[in-house]
Parts: sequence; structure tokens; C-alpha cells
Amino acid sequence: MSAAPLFEKVALIGFGLIGGSIARAAKAQGLAGEIVTTARSPKTRERVKELGIVDRVVDTNIEAVKDADLVILCIPVGACGPVAQEIGPHLKAGAIVSDVGSVKGAVVRDMAPHLPKGVHFVPAHPVAGTEHSGPDSGFAELFVNRWCILTPPEGTDRTAVEKLQAFWAAIGAKVEVMTPDHHDLVLAITSHLPHLIAYTIVGTADELEKVTSSEVMQFSASGFRDFTRIAASDPTMWRDVFLTNKDAVLEMLGTFNEDLSKLTRAIRRGDGDALFEHFTRTRAIRRGIIQLGQDSAAPDFGRSHASLPKPDGK
Amino acid sequence: MSAAPLFEKVALIGFGLIGGSIARAAKAQGLAGEIVTTARSPKTRERVKELGIVDRVVDTNIEAVKDADLVILCIPVGACGPVAQEIGPHLKAGAIVSDVGSVKGAVVRDMAPHLPKGVHFVPAHPVAGTEHSGPDSGFAELFVNRWCILTPPEGTDRTAVEKLQAFWAAIGAKVEVMTPDHHDLVLAITSHLPHLIAYTIVGTADELEKVTSSEVMQFSASGFRDFTRIAASDPTMWRDVFLTNKDAVLEMLGTFNEDLSKLTRAIRRGDGDALFEHFTRTRAIRRGIIQLGQDSAAPDFGRSHASLPKPDGK
Repeated sequence: MSAAPLFEKVALIGFGLIGGSIARAAKAQGLAGEIVTTARSPKTRERVKELGIVDRVVDTNIEAVKDADLVILCIPVGACGPVAQEIGPHLKAGAIVSDVGSVKGAVVRDMAPHLPKGVHFVPAHPVAGTEHSGPDSGFAELFVNRWCILTPPEGTDRTAVEKLQAFWAAIGAKVEVMTPDHHDLVLAITSHLPHLIAYTIVGTADELEKVTSSEVMQFSASGFRDFTRIAASDPTMWRDVFLTNKDAVLEMLGTFNEDLSKLTRAIRRGDGDALFEHFTRTRAIRRGIIQLGQDSAAPDFGRSHASLPKPDGK
Repeated sequence: MSAAPLFEKVALIGFGLIGGSIARAAKAQGLAGEIVTTARSPKTRERVKELGIVDRVVDTNIEAVKDADLVILCIPVGACGPVAQEIGPHLKAGAIVSDVGSVKGAVVRDMAPHLPKGVHFVPAHPVAGTEHSGPDSGFAELFVNRWCILTPPEGTDRTAVEKLQAFWAAIGAKVEVMTPDHHDLVLAITSHLPHLIAYTIVGTADELEKVTSSEVMQFSASGFRDFTRIAASDPTMWRDVFLTNKDAVLEMLGTFNEDLSKLTRAIRRGDGDALFEHFTRTRAIRRGIIQLGQDSAAPDFGRSHASLPKPDGK
């Protein structure tokens, strides 16, 4: 006989890359007696029904959260406040409410006022993703060996935090707890600034006069193509990230600009030693990330390479 | 019976990622009667002997190029001039001399004066690589489906160009011919600027006061880790690239900085529409690169994901 599931009813609001991956993983691990999903667009709801991963697809957020023990908002950060306001009066007493947003200060500020007493609010951010989006993009292994950061407000019920922690651990994640402000600063440098830079340079390359877009794409294997993967991420999600984590992003951008000026000056002056010193230092960070199991040591991220053509005349 | 090899004797000066990959591929395809290699450091020469890929490892550049029909300099751009000066008087009449440098204007300027009449100079740049370096890092499939750009000076013997073209095609590359100046502009945006940006941001992340390096590495899966791969590339090679392609890099950097200012302003003003429009546009470039076969459509470059842990109590 299997053990009782961690939650009787789990409601997922939104079924994109993250919501869809949580659903697949929770199903695979038997973490919920029932998984109920909704999504804003009828087309997505229809697709989720076809996929047959969750137990029930319902038309409204209110219907979804009814009697749910765990409610996770898997929607863009900017939509979290209005949805909290909508579902607040319909939440079951003792329910845990969480989210998956990449920004935490704004989510706490927007959602907390709408959640009734007796409901446990435990914001979360699984630090995992791909450049794909939509209901078909998720997969059960997305969170394995990735971090999930919880940012419970002071005084949150400890049992509720531990239960959400157990949920994330069961779908493979390592869990860390920090304040929303510190989270937003850490993610500004590890995620938001890299995305902004990638979005910028891909846009720059697309608008040059002297080099055509087709040349840019053709010769992209020399570095550029890595940036295009990041700059292919979901536009709505990323718009919201920059609007809601403005201060931390602008702070990191200031430091980045100073550092870019220094390297630019070294190039302008032909200071090879300064360049060499800098380029040697950054290699060490890569090694650290690989040692921590956060990336593959295989060259080119382990991208596959096609075989050589058959030699002529053999 | 096999066909005659394309070249009787091929000399590779330098045995890093590119030289080592050319050696492995040329061997696999039977393109050379004999492959002779040398490298500056005795340690590398020793390792190349152990690897047993090439026919002969010799101690000096002069010895390597003796009687060679094809000589390829597989060394950092900054070393090409002095090596051309050294080998010039020892080249066989009718030999083809090439290189693999990421910058072409400077290589032509530095090498051409030292090459005698009757030797065919056909500079080349295979647009392929990984973040690894050294004699063990190469592999025979590196150039498959990648572009190799040739930049022969005006008036170069057409047969020599075609022969080098056949060599690169036989190890899987697609060949394009352009002027050194245009090459340097194209690569400034597709390769050199992305590397500069990646080197910068990885350095920035390493020196923050409010976020520790260990946090940066831990939460790197949210975008940052892609940049660290590029910023782990060979420091000597990249120092030389920025010293020798200064003008084109600074020009692209100027445009990039303007574009970054525009996006920064949109963030500061909370202009969500401008951000959304930009982020939507850049997605199209990614699609183009995948259609051209220059990257994988698999999420996360096809990085492998570990399996879920076994569900409890089952």
C-alpha cells in the first residue's frame, strides 16, 4: 500500500513551463490526492485536458482553489496580486498558498494583503527553467538538483513551511529560505541582469547596418547563439520581472556598467595584462558551478555534434 | 583501394582545441599522407605523442613545415606574425599556408610580409569551438555543420583556395569567402562582443558586496551559468582577439551601450510595452538560428536532467 499523499488537493493556477512541470512531477511522485488546474485562456485549458496529466481542469480560479490544501500560483509576477484578491475569500482555512515568481518582494507586497487569516502564505521561487513556454513545455525532471527558494514572512507557521519544503524536496529540489529582499538581490545578478544583457545584445545584432541578420545567425556558433537562448524566454514573464524588481536590477546594472567601462578602457589602451588577468579569474567561477552540480562539465553544455561525413573514395 | 590523400604532408603548428580537432578529423577522413605537429611547450608535445593521433611530433616549427604542402597555424592570433617570420624561409614552393585565428585583418597584416612568393596564403577561421582548451580538448566532429570563413588576399591562386576549401569541407565544415575587414566586423558582433559581455558580468558577480560568490554559483541555473561557459574560454586567445580587433569591437560596443541605455530607461520608467515589444522581437532570431542548424531546439541546449528521486513509501 502506498503512503498517504502529502496533500489531499493541490490547485495549480496557470499551466506554463513551471506549472506544467510541477503537475507532471507531483503526479509522478504521488504527492497529491487530486491535482486540479486552471488557466486563463480556454485554449490552454483545452490543451491541459488533452494532455491528461492532471485530475481535473476547471474554468475559474475560484473553482480551482475550493477545498485545496495547497494552492500554487504559476503565473507571471504581475498577475499575482489580482489573482490573490480574487481567490482570497474562497480559500480553505489552513490552506497553504504559494507561487513560483522570479521576484519575491513585489509578490509579497501584492498578495499578502488579500490572504485571510488562517491561510499560510509561503512564497517560493524554483530556480529552474528553460527558454520554452506553454503547456507542452514542462517536464517532471525540471527541478531535480535545482534550488527552490522560500521567502515566508516573519511569523509564518513553521509546519506549513516544512510541508511546502517537503513538497519541493519530493520533486527533486533543494530548498533554501531567505528574505524577499535578499532573494531579489541574488536573482538580480544571477538571472535578471543576464537576461537583460542577452535581450540587449540580440536586439543589437538584429539592427546593425554593416552586418546582416542572416550573417549573424549563420556565424552564431562562435558565442552569440548562447545569448539567443536566454533572449528567447517568455516576454510576459520577463517584462514583469523588470517592472517589479527595478531597484535591484538597476543597482546591479550600475556595477556591471562600471566593470564594462574598465574592460573597454583596457581594450582601448591595449592593456593585454589587465585583460588576461580578468579572463583567468572568471574561469574559476565556472569550475565552482560545475563542482556544485549546477551545470555540466561537458564542452558546449553537452550539445550533440553530428558525425563526420564518410571519407571520399573509401 | 583508397583515393590519394588531398595533401601529402600537413603541418599543424599548435595543438590546442582547434589544432587537435583538425588533426583528429583529418586523420579520420584520410586527408593527409602524413600529419606532422609541433607545439611551443615540451609538455604539450609530449602529450601529443602520447595521444598517438598524428604521425610525427617534432620539436621546432622549422622542422614541422619542411616539405609540407599545407601548413596551418593553430595558435593565438598574436603569435602568428612571429611564427610566419620564423617559418617563411623554410616553406616549400607551392605550399598553402593558413591559420585558424578569430581575427583576420591583423593576421593578414602580420603574416603576409613574411611569406615568400610562390607560397599560397589563405587565411581561415573555423567558426567553432568550446570553452575547453589544451591538447586533450579536441574532437573530430567539432567542425561538422559549422562555417569556416576563408579570407584570401586579392589575386590568391584559385586552385589553392579551392584545395583548402575541399579540406575544410571534408572535415564537415561549410565554407564561405569574405574580406578580412568584413569578417572582423561580423565576428565582432557574433563572437567578440558576446565574450566581452560574458567576461564582464561573470567578473561583476564575483565582486559584489551584498551577494556572495557562493550564492551566485548556487543559484546560477537561472541564466548566469550560460555566461560562465563563455567566460571560461582560453584567456590567451581572447586577450589577443581584443587587442587585434579593437576597432570593430569598440564600434559594436558603442551600439550595444546605446541599446542597453534604451532598455534601462524603459525599466526606470516602468514602460512595460517597450520591454514586451523588445523581448518578443528577439525570440525570432533564436528561431532563425535553429532553422539554420546552428543550434539545438532542445530546451536548455539539450542539457541532460537527472531523474526524479523514487517516491517515498512506494
